[in-house]
Amino acid sequence: MGKPRVFSGMRPTGRLQLGNYFGALKSWVDMQDDYECYFGVVDWHALTTGYEDTSEIRENTREMVIDWLSAGLDPEKSVIIRQSDIKEHAELQLLFSMITPLGWLERCPTYKEQLHQLEGRDIMTYGFLGYPVLMAADILAYKAEAVPVGEDQLPHVELTREIARRFNFLYKPVFPEPQALLNRDVTLLPGIDGRKMSKSYGNYILMSAEAKDVEERVGMMVTDPERIRRTDPGHPDVCTVYAFHKVFSKDELPQIEADCTGARVGCVECKRRLARALNQVLEPIREKRRALMANPDLVEDILRDGARKARAVAGRTLEEVRSAMRI
Amino acid sequence: MGKPRVFSGMRPTGRLQLGNYFGALKSWVDMQDDYECYFGVVDWHALTTGYEDTSEIRENTREMVIDWLSAGLDPEKSVIIRQSDIKEHAELQLLFSMITPLGWLERCPTYKEQLHQLEGRDIMTYGFLGYPVLMAADILAYKAEAVPVGEDQLPHVELTREIARRFNFLYKPVFPEPQALLNRDVTLLPGIDGRKMSKSYGNYILMSAEAKDVEERVGMMVTDPERIRRTDPGHPDVCTVYAFHKVFSKDELPQIEADCTGARVGCVECKRRLARALNQVLEPIREKRRALMANPDLVEDILRDGARKARAVAGRTLEEVRSAMRI
Repeated sequence: MGKPRVFSGMRPTGRLQLGNYFGALKSWVDMQDDYECYFGVVDWHALTTGYEDTSEIRENTREMVIDWLSAGLDPEKSVIIRQSDIKEHAELQLLFSMITPLGWLERCPTYKEQLHQLEGRDIMTYGFLGYPVLMAADILAYKAEAVPVGEDQLPHVELTREIARRFNFLYKPVFPEPQALLNRDVTLLPGIDGRKMSKSYGNYILMSAEAKDVEERVGMMVTDPERIRRTDPGHPDVCTVYAFHKVFSKDELPQIEADCTGARVGCVECKRRLARALNQVLEPIREKRRALMANPDLVEDILRDGARKARAVAGRTLEEVRSAMRI
Repeated sequence: MGKPRVFSGMRPTGRLQLGNYFGALKSWVDMQDDYECYFGVVDWHALTTGYEDTSEIRENTREMVIDWLSAGLDPEKSVIIRQSDIKEHAELQLLFSMITPLGWLERCPTYKEQLHQLEGRDIMTYGFLGYPVLMAADILAYKAEAVPVGEDQLPHVELTREIARRFNFLYKPVFPEPQALLNRDVTLLPGIDGRKMSKSYGNYILMSAEAKDVEERVGMMVTDPERIRRTDPGHPDVCTVYAFHKVFSKDELPQIEADCTGARVGCVECKRRLARALNQVLEPIREKRRALMANPDLVEDILRDGARKARAVAGRTLEEVRSAMRI
């Protein structure tokens, strides 16, 4: 072992979009050789905002894990779990709840922000307020030293550090204070309409989209509104297609820019180039997905195996915790 | 079975006083034939107010269970558990937390009262606020239909019913709505100084007190302050000794009252009578305790056996819960 340990999780949202892939999943795949990785489908967290309709959690878990594997998460290298399979997370959450001041949770900057964003949904629950305590339990059950997160999650990692510190102070030093690991090479892909890519806007491209779908979605992309005729020079900086080229056509970028600003290549042709580049990246992922789908038990087998490994580690941590607390 | 099922718990406070015995334990003993009983040492609850010093939880658990057994709780009839052994309570607490509105907890009448009473202790924690959610999980993990409680716990049983109702409404009808069972024959014994019997006042008599101790503590009891000389008539209604006689010398009560008001028997002799009566009740309990102490593994064996039985029942409940929630 010897490698630093990390834990990170995603809520079971079903098939991932390109935004999720480039925002998080790709960096998880890249971390597997340098870290001892625990990746979790955090289905209990999904309940904090979605307890009213739980009908798709299981299917969404399955689809998301297939995406993880298609993208290159390797169960031989990393431990892949479903949070609700590891009861130690719940026990540790309960124990941490006893030492976590209410004020820490109420003052957490993301708390009021989310309450505001999700207005209309009935989420003023005890569990929603305690979300960072559960996250601390997820991370510290494995004594993870690092947590790959997006910037919006930094306050939660800070709370995890504070809970670890308080436990170590009150009882015995059991936990490391995990560091946030801001995802390397985060690439923010816009949606096809130029806004943030989001399921609720319907402007996304799925990681697992078929080649035909990719062509179609790219064809619908918003381009420079001032380039009305083919002979008008374009402005790549305001073009969604160009934003994608920056990720998928890195090597040809100067050429693409020149073709656009010099009005040498039209938007239709430029989109065709992008669709080709995109499909080149996605084809191996799609191929992997097709192979994985051939074995309908695969995801459950992987989660069962992950749970076994995770429970061994989390179980040892909880033994230490109980002994430190003399309970 | 067919008998209605009950759950009740006590925090691990160590050796019980006569007040605990007559306030709760005796009625538990009496219920064993008419109900399918689950009795728990709720050590996780002890953390809600006592997380800062946990050094005595294990020993206090052991001493309290010995008192339970000495008083007549029978592990052949009832399931005797330590809460923290049954992880299902933590899982169910976490799931209930997702559907429990914060307002229900903040408005719980006992919450602010306790915050006020325990001022100075740092208990403004997330776990302390969530105490009724954990209690609901304790009770509903066994689908208990009745909960023997004192009057002060009624709001918590009401919250348990509300959580059960909300779960049944949101998902599927899984839980009964448990009824509070106010302890039958509650006898409020004062402390030897006439105030409420309490460990913090030092005015208690332990259930397990030796005969000599009982005589000594009864000798210290506060009597009618207006009966200065042996020949003064006494006022039984203001006398602590008489309050005890009402419980321990029921048959001779008219005689005792007449002897006091008629100044026929002095306080010293009256106390001797009480000590004899008290020791007559306590001797079989002490004897049982001595026998139990001979087997140092007994408590752990009983708790292990209780945990096995409890887990089987709670495990089935949690399966139903997960299936209803589709998680």
